[in-house]
Formats: sequence, C-alpha cells, structure tokens
Amino acid sequence: MSFTPLLQRLLAALSCLPGVGQKTAQRMALHLLEKDRDGGRTLVEALDEALNGIGLCERCRMFAENSVCPICATERRDKSILCVVETPADVIAIEDSASYSGVYFVLLGRLSPLDGIGPEELGVEILEHRLSGGEIRELILATSATVEGEATAAFIAGLAHSHNVPATRIAHGVPVGGELEYVDSGTLSRAIGARTSFEG
Amino acid sequence: MSFTPLLQRLLAALSCLPGVGQKTAQRMALHLLEKDRDGGRTLVEALDEALNGIGLCERCRMFAENSVCPICATERRDKSILCVVETPADVIAIEDSASYSGVYFVLLGRLSPLDGIGPEELGVEILEHRLSGGEIRELILATSATVEGEATAAFIAGLAHSHNVPATRIAHGVPVGGELEYVDSGTLSRAIGARTSFEG
Repeated sequence: MSFTPLLQRLLAALSCLPGVGQKTAQRMALHLLEKDRDGGRTLVEALDEALNGIGLCERCRMFAENSVCPICATERRDKSILCVVETPADVIAIEDSASYSGVYFVLLGRLSPLDGIGPEELGVEILEHRLSGGEIRELILATSATVEGEATAAFIAGLAHSHNVPATRIAHGVPVGGELEYVDSGTLSRAIGARTSFEG
Repeated sequence: MSFTPLLQRLLAALSCLPGVGQKTAQRMALHLLEKDRDGGRTLVEALDEALNGIGLCERCRMFAENSVCPICATERRDKSILCVVETPADVIAIEDSASYSGVYFVLLGRLSPLDGIGPEELGVEILEHRLSGGEIRELILATSATVEGEATAAFIAGLAHSHNVPATRIAHGVPVGGELEYVDSGTLSRAIGARTSFEG
C-alpha cells in the first residue's frame, strides 16, 4: 500500500541501517509507532547525542567523547606497543579477546585507490607523528587478510621501518576450534606455509 | 569492552527495535558513527517527525497524519463494509493483497484480560458509534486465528449483532500454494471441517 509521507520518510531513514531492508524497516516503524513511542523518543535523543558528542580520539582515531579515548587516556596500557587496525569494530573485537594491553591506531578504512582512499584518508600523518615520537617499540599490523588489507599492511610496515620501528603482522591460519574440512584453501595454504616447530 | 557512556546509551536505545540484540545494535551504531553520519541525522529527524506527526485516525484507529487516515478519507472505498483487524500491519497486509475495497477498524490489540487489555483499550466505543450509525452493512472479522483472536472476534460479533449488523469471519484453511504435508494439524482439521462444495 502507499504509505503516508512521514511514514514513508521514516521507512527510508531506517533502511540506511545495515541489514535493514524495506520489510524490516516497516516492522521497526510500526513497532515504534504502535507499541514503543517512548523507546522511539529515547532513540531519537540517544542517536542525536551520540552523533554530536562522539568524535575521534586525536591520538588513535578510535571513537571518543573527549579529545582522547579511554584506552589512550589510561595509565594502565603499554604505550610502547601500537596495534594498527582498520575499524573501531576491530578494536572492540581485540579488546573482547582480552589478549592485548598496548594501544591502537584506527585507520578507518584501508588503501583502496579505486575508491579514492589514499594515505591521507587513513590518518597516516597522525600515525607518522606517533612513530617519530620514539615512544613506540613495536607496531603490530592487524589489518584484514584481504588484498587491500595486505597492501595497507605493507604500506604501514614501510612507514614503520622508515622510522626504525619494528613491524609485526598478526598470525593467519586455521581458526581455533575449526575443522580442517571446512577451512578454505587460501587459509589452509597459508597455515601450511607458516607452520612452526612443535614440541608435544 | 566497556563502551563510553554515549555509545552505551545508543546501544541500549537501538536494542529497543524489534529483532535487534546487543550485537546488531553494535553493528548499527558503529556503521552510523563511522560511515553514515548523514544517514543517522536523517533518521533522527524522520523518527522525531514521525513520532510527533503520526497519530491515530479518529474513525478507524489506523495511523494517520491528519485527523482521518487516507483510507477513511477517500471517496473510492465502500464505507458500508467494515473489516476489523488487530494491528496496522494487518491493514497493510490486506491492502497489499488488493482484494478489499471497504474500510477498516484497527483494534490495536486483542482481548487479553491477563495483560489488562479489555474492550476500552481496543477502542470499542468508537466501533460501537460507527455500528450505530446505520451505514455499515457487513462487519468482517479479520482478527488472528489464535485463542485470543477468536475470543476478540466473538466479542466483536456480539457487538455487531446487538446493532443488527451481520458479521462474517475470514476463511481459515490450507494456505494457497501450500503442500498438505507441511500444514499443521490444527489448520488441517479446520480446513476439513470447513470444506465447501466443489464443482470442477
């Protein structure tokens, strides 16, 4: 059926959310209007405040509500190890693994000349400034294992070496708990190529 | 990881959407903040305007941006047939089937004494006012085929009869295109009980 203008606009706006198509947008809009107008108002306020109040950390480009994000601000992180990732979601994933106590640098993308994403878009200037500070002992490359992610890793590694900072890359191979049968051949060939000595 | 306050509030607000849990809310929030702040602002405006501008039609309780909804306002609908449904989504579903040219009445719920939903919550007063107007020739009961939906249908049918308006119930049976094998036994027994004569 043809929706009224305000409803139509709401459906279009909801469809900009990832994973939300026309049908899901309709379900969400009707739910909010019919059963949860208070929830809708809370969402309006929360989203408005988040968009206005959340910017980027000036040190690492992670989301931050002040000029510096909590990870960069705390004394408890090892500031001499810097992990370079593509997105804030990657930071969250690594933090959830509770396996890393250094700091981060978020590229907010990866080198992709066809999409017009070059070094400037990735905040490389800020990264070079940090590398030149002499504080960093190791730079960990945690960009994704795609063609563009590898190219980005190679580029950042070059930067690190030009500042005499050793660069390392996170290990790639068979996921823990994974059955070999279901692992793709690219991952398998990499796992075999990068095998390590094993002492029972 | 522990999120900053504004982000945490946004995640909680997004979780009020149907079908959105913690993980999806995180994906939506990061997407809006990282890649589509304009889309986020559009959503804030569209949702705000929809919540303020969309009310209920005073004749049928469907969503409406004026005092009367487009279906009640147009001359092209048959005002003598009234279809009673539970939710606005039901109106949309029937309109999409393009099989009905009468008008609607939306209960916005169904009788459910345990949840404190009685006749007043369903707008029965407005419905009775329309039934007493003498304009309605037939009332179609299109509430859902659940225990509560059937109880609601029986209650509304009683109202219709007290105003000398004949009430009908939409047919229940095997879905069109459905294989018998996959139809539940309740639907099958109803389909067999309500069989009609068949002339090749």
